[in-house]
Amino acid sequence: MLDFHQGDFTLPGEAGYEALTLALARKWGADVIRDSDGTKLSDEIVSAGYRIYSTICIIRQHNAFAEAHPDAQQQTFLISEPVIAESEHVDISLIKGYYTEQFELNTDEDSLTYWQVWDRTENVEIPREQWHYEDGRVVVDGCKPWHSYTASFLCWRVWEEINMYNHTTNGWTSAHLRQLDPRHPAAWKYLRDWLENWCVENPQTNVVRLTSLFYNFVWIWGDDARHRNRFTDWASYDFTVSPAALKAFEAQYGYALTAEDFVNGGKFQVTHMPPTKAKRDYMSFIHAFVADKARELVEIIHRHGKLAYVFYDDSWVGMEPYGGHFGDIGLDGIIKCVFSGFECRLCAGVNTPTHELRFHPYLFPVGLGGLPTFSEGGHPEKDAMEYWLHVRRALARQSVDRIGLGGYLHLTEGYPQFVDVIEQMAMDFRRLKALHSHGAPYVLPCRVAVLHTWGSLRPWTLSGHFHETFMHPLIHINEALSGLPVDVKFISFEDAENGILDNVDVVINAGRAGDAWSGGEAWHSTRLVEALTEFVHRGGTFIGVGQPSAVPGHDTFFRMAHVLGIDEDTGARVCHGRWTFAAETDSRIRVLADCLGNNHNLYLTDGRVRVLCAKDGVPQMTLRSFGKGMGIYMSGFSVNPESTAMLLDLLRLACGHGDGKYIPGDRRVEAAYFPVDKTLVAMNNSEQPVETTVLTDEGELRLALSPLEMKFVLL
Amino acid sequence: MLDFHQGDFTLPGEAGYEALTLALARKWGADVIRDSDGTKLSDEIVSAGYRIYSTICIIRQHNAFAEAHPDAQQQTFLISEPVIAESEHVDISLIKGYYTEQFELNTDEDSLTYWQVWDRTENVEIPREQWHYEDGRVVVDGCKPWHSYTASFLCWRVWEEINMYNHTTNGWTSAHLRQLDPRHPAAWKYLRDWLENWCVENPQTNVVRLTSLFYNFVWIWGDDARHRNRFTDWASYDFTVSPAALKAFEAQYGYALTAEDFVNGGKFQVTHMPPTKAKRDYMSFIHAFVADKARELVEIIHRHGKLAYVFYDDSWVGMEPYGGHFGDIGLDGIIKCVFSGFECRLCAGVNTPTHELRFHPYLFPVGLGGLPTFSEGGHPEKDAMEYWLHVRRALARQSVDRIGLGGYLHLTEGYPQFVDVIEQMAMDFRRLKALHSHGAPYVLPCRVAVLHTWGSLRPWTLSGHFHETFMHPLIHINEALSGLPVDVKFISFEDAENGILDNVDVVINAGRAGDAWSGGEAWHSTRLVEALTEFVHRGGTFIGVGQPSAVPGHDTFFRMAHVLGIDEDTGARVCHGRWTFAAETDSRIRVLADCLGNNHNLYLTDGRVRVLCAKDGVPQMTLRSFGKGMGIYMSGFSVNPESTAMLLDLLRLACGHGDGKYIPGDRRVEAAYFPVDKTLVAMNNSEQPVETTVLTDEGELRLALSPLEMKFVLL
Repeated sequence: MLDFHQGDFTLPGEAGYEALTLALARKWGADVIRDSDGTKLSDEIVSAGYRIYSTICIIRQHNAFAEAHPDAQQQTFLISEPVIAESEHVDISLIKGYYTEQFELNTDEDSLTYWQVWDRTENVEIPREQWHYEDGRVVVDGCKPWHSYTASFLCWRVWEEINMYNHTTNGWTSAHLRQLDPRHPAAWKYLRDWLENWCVENPQTNVVRLTSLFYNFVWIWGDDARHRNRFTDWASYDFTVSPAALKAFEAQYGYALTAEDFVNGGKFQVTHMPPTKAKRDYMSFIHAFVADKARELVEIIHRHGKLAYVFYDDSWVGMEPYGGHFGDIGLDGIIKCVFSGFECRLCAGVNTPTHELRFHPYLFPVGLGGLPTFSEGGHPEKDAMEYWLHVRRALARQSVDRIGLGGYLHLTEGYPQFVDVIEQMAMDFRRLKALHSHGAPYVLPCRVAVLHTWGSLRPWTLSGHFHETFMHPLIHINEALSGLPVDVKFISFEDAENGILDNVDVVINAGRAGDAWSGGEAWHSTRLVEALTEFVHRGGTFIGVGQPSAVPGHDTFFRMAHVLGIDEDTGARVCHGRWTFAAETDSRIRVLADCLGNNHNLYLTDGRVRVLCAKDGVPQMTLRSFGKGMGIYMSGFSVNPESTAMLLDLLRLACGHGDGKYIPGDRRVEAAYFPVDKTLVAMNNSEQPVETTVLTDEGELRLALSPLEMKFVLL
Repeated sequence: MLDFHQGDFTLPGEAGYEALTLALARKWGADVIRDSDGTKLSDEIVSAGYRIYSTICIIRQHNAFAEAHPDAQQQTFLISEPVIAESEHVDISLIKGYYTEQFELNTDEDSLTYWQVWDRTENVEIPREQWHYEDGRVVVDGCKPWHSYTASFLCWRVWEEINMYNHTTNGWTSAHLRQLDPRHPAAWKYLRDWLENWCVENPQTNVVRLTSLFYNFVWIWGDDARHRNRFTDWASYDFTVSPAALKAFEAQYGYALTAEDFVNGGKFQVTHMPPTKAKRDYMSFIHAFVADKARELVEIIHRHGKLAYVFYDDSWVGMEPYGGHFGDIGLDGIIKCVFSGFECRLCAGVNTPTHELRFHPYLFPVGLGGLPTFSEGGHPEKDAMEYWLHVRRALARQSVDRIGLGGYLHLTEGYPQFVDVIEQMAMDFRRLKALHSHGAPYVLPCRVAVLHTWGSLRPWTLSGHFHETFMHPLIHINEALSGLPVDVKFISFEDAENGILDNVDVVINAGRAGDAWSGGEAWHSTRLVEALTEFVHRGGTFIGVGQPSAVPGHDTFFRMAHVLGIDEDTGARVCHGRWTFAAETDSRIRVLADCLGNNHNLYLTDGRVRVLCAKDGVPQMTLRSFGKGMGIYMSGFSVNPESTAMLLDLLRLACGHGDGKYIPGDRRVEAAYFPVDKTLVAMNNSEQPVETTVLTDEGELRLALSPLEMKFVLL
């Protein structure tokens, strides 16, 4: 038996709390000590024999340079509030409504070139001759009364957004940190020199933890406290823009982007919507740039004998760990903060030597949602356990290399239960990692492909954390899949058209009509519908959730209605009669009605469909055979242990039931079986003790699990 | 004081029940006795001194002719079930899934000309050379595997639909009645001669009650009892078609219609959706034809010294009582069966000398919904009272000339309460009619225009009865408006663009995105948005309900979002921040949250909007000032006395509160004031006794009303 008390754990150290740091390092079995945003390590910690991670936010710690070179700061496009013309003139206040601590107008000549004024009523751009800039406003002539006008313009971003968030959340009084654009030649030279020098001055550092690269996810704030959050998108590229970037793009791609390609009539380019070709091109362009610049930094770090890890959040935009240029950077590891199982799989799948999870809660007084954690009213041990329930089942499917924490270590004082919970998690993690190192866990003969716009470029995640994307059924599906004993891949519509389905048993398409997850206009493709129809006819299963394959303009709204046997009426069938039906039960499917949606506009397209759940007389979950395969529909899906068990039942139905081995009888319990070590990992996801059985190669195994227990059983 | 016991009442007589007929004629004050579908009048009844209405369904009573001339029967386009090609050949069963007692394939040469086969996957028609007809099937060659194919074809309709319905509902065993197409020359000559002869043979008849003209509303039945009702639309034109009609249309309009113009990929041409130009043209074409033929019939009837009334249901299609040719027919009256207030207004507004309402329940064992009325478990007196509550408030706003009943009179035996209720209703009706005859009731200075696709061609109704259209918020709005003390008109988008708003105070747009009531693509019109924006800015009010002014492709989904201050996110704003707000109360508006919708995707477009109701943190009812006017939004509207009072509050807010005269304080009570007679008609809409007050020109009036009472108070 190995000793699972030691290793693969990154502890946040804190100067002034040396004894605590070293004590917790022992208790949690840390091999690495790191600093965090807001903490320092002292010599006593650094020289205690642990490997040292040092956090660098490369673009942020240079206010003096930024003040001397204000044109080296980062930018973004913004769009004014619309103004209704009451005469032939309108006067548009530009920055009005935006947080002026974050944004300052960029009125340089090369910026003005990219500004636009639009008549939103007619959806046309106003010629440049009809407007001029004047003292924070755009004045437009020749307007049409009662039309709506907007101006789009470039702004400097004068407060690095993560600093802005932490500052605001934690009541900091320090200077607002600015940020530099690596595309600015002087800034780039400065940053390279600065990193070179930093490496020289920090010989004790073993790993430079880049937090993260250059461009933050989008976080546009408003000036009114009632509208502080105007736009948040973990994966959008708005904050990468500048006149220099736009010129370089035009030179390389042969066409110019405009402000409208970014502000999109005020909607911006949301990751949840299918991208335009211009956005895809721009993303490729920025990804190549970011990878190139990041590679230069990694080379400096390597030259100093250090490793370079990157944090997979914050200024991650353009890095695209699943993009074509990511490998060129030469990073030694990636670190992802996780609340959920899907985030573990997202991290674990990146092609890099080391994968590390930073657990939550962060050692901060309050959590991301603003609720107390390490402060009055907080229960950090409960928070940690809740996240761990999601994470451990994903780790049971696919391991990472390391785990760790972040924040102010001294906050753990007074929370001994938290300290114990982390100790246990660390041990469980090490046991799982050891099992994986001997051989992969057993999976059902079921190859699942999640089909959406972004495909393999954006597996597992939608855009940010679960609590930011909970309104999308797909994140619930992904979270459920992250711990199920099946093979999962993420495919795009182009993949589906080009042969990938030959190696797939189940395709899942889950989303809202028009969005990136359902697919929107991609479903106009005849080739796509042909490929999926043939796939099902030959024995595959198509699972549609919400508004799958939905696009207007065809005889059915769901393009796969002929397979699913169910469709949504968008108004044209409101006085068509509906097939009546009796909802059936199927002993193989443990239906959980509460996790489905409640869409009143669904109707059966034929009489051969089996309805497994209806609400108010409207089917919400159906099964239909098609050729040798099957269509399965659910009007929604919200994840919990019981709905996860239902999804597993559906996948087993789709792929043949097999022998049912290693699937516990009680749906509150999940298991992973590691054949090389003949070890079954059983997880009780409920707060009750559970007794259940599981069929194994050695016969039926009786399991008794205490609440929330993770048990390692040698068969 | 007049005697309100006598007159303006049409009684259904029944042979074999002569004493009952004459007793009820006295009790209910009938001046007319009619026959009904399934009843006859005896000589004793006919000679009792009453005026006599005789019912004729002109196209239905001629089975012998129809059997001799099967090509004179009416037709319709149908579309096959889609068939997925598994090879290059598909074999499409045509009639499969349709009710074969209703439909027979028309395989005549001139019919086949109009058949079509479509590849629904690619949305293209298959060339005629690739398919042929064979024994009830269409066989298609050169198919693309995995594509979906349909065939569209003409059928004879071999069972007149109202007879089919009554037959099926009442278990009749008589022969299925067939129907003739007046466009068939021999049939038309036959029908003219038949009517001529009928008039000669029925000298006792004073009024020929045409039930109704030629073409029934659409009622397409299926063969599977689980899908008997495939498509029902009170106002669609599918049943008017034939090769002869299509040829005549092409000759007149210069372009040919195709099967697809009717079957529309299986959706058919639903009245609830905006019509194509082809559909509008075709409606005009049929309307002119129907009016021309109906005029010939009326001329025959007049020549025999009789009057011609028409029933405004069943085979009413093409008659269009608000259409341009209706007046040409020369009808003497129109009769509408009513459950609801909006149906009274629909009838009352037709430009014809006599307007008559046929009350419900029909004297049948079961009602339209299949529930018992005059049979075990039925409560016809309660049904009658429930409908009367809706009808009387509309009659208080606008009178008709007559009322009546229909069906088997003997069924009333054993229901004395029903007999008493009808007697009271008849007296109340006569009092209302008398008041109206002296002068119109007082209305607020509030001119309301309901804005939708059909405008003044289709006022008040959507398509059929309330219970068939309850899912549309507009029918609830119309029903509420039918009894409110305001001026109401129905306008189209073209009207709104062309100056009609100069004479309007409030515009209401209520519907679902894309439908005929919201307007769909009409909202792409810049001119429309300009006109409404100017209208509100100058002091008008725009009330949007559900998805008003919604159309994709602009910066906002609701085109009037700049006025309303609220919009719906269709996916592109899912990670945009929302304005936070505190819901307000306004003492002038009696908000009823339950009657609103619950749309989670609504968001405020600015911070100046007042939220009057929110659900789950999402605004569902808002007010916003714009220029001198106002935008009001409700996410839904379901009608009841309390929501009707709320709507009245909103209209008063929009038009100035005035002096509040003649509006009872308790919202369960409504009133109409007739200034010439100085009479206040107070209606208690609740089943509780209510005491309330109402401000009049004579000061405050105290009212005490018993449950459901209608009280006439002389001031």
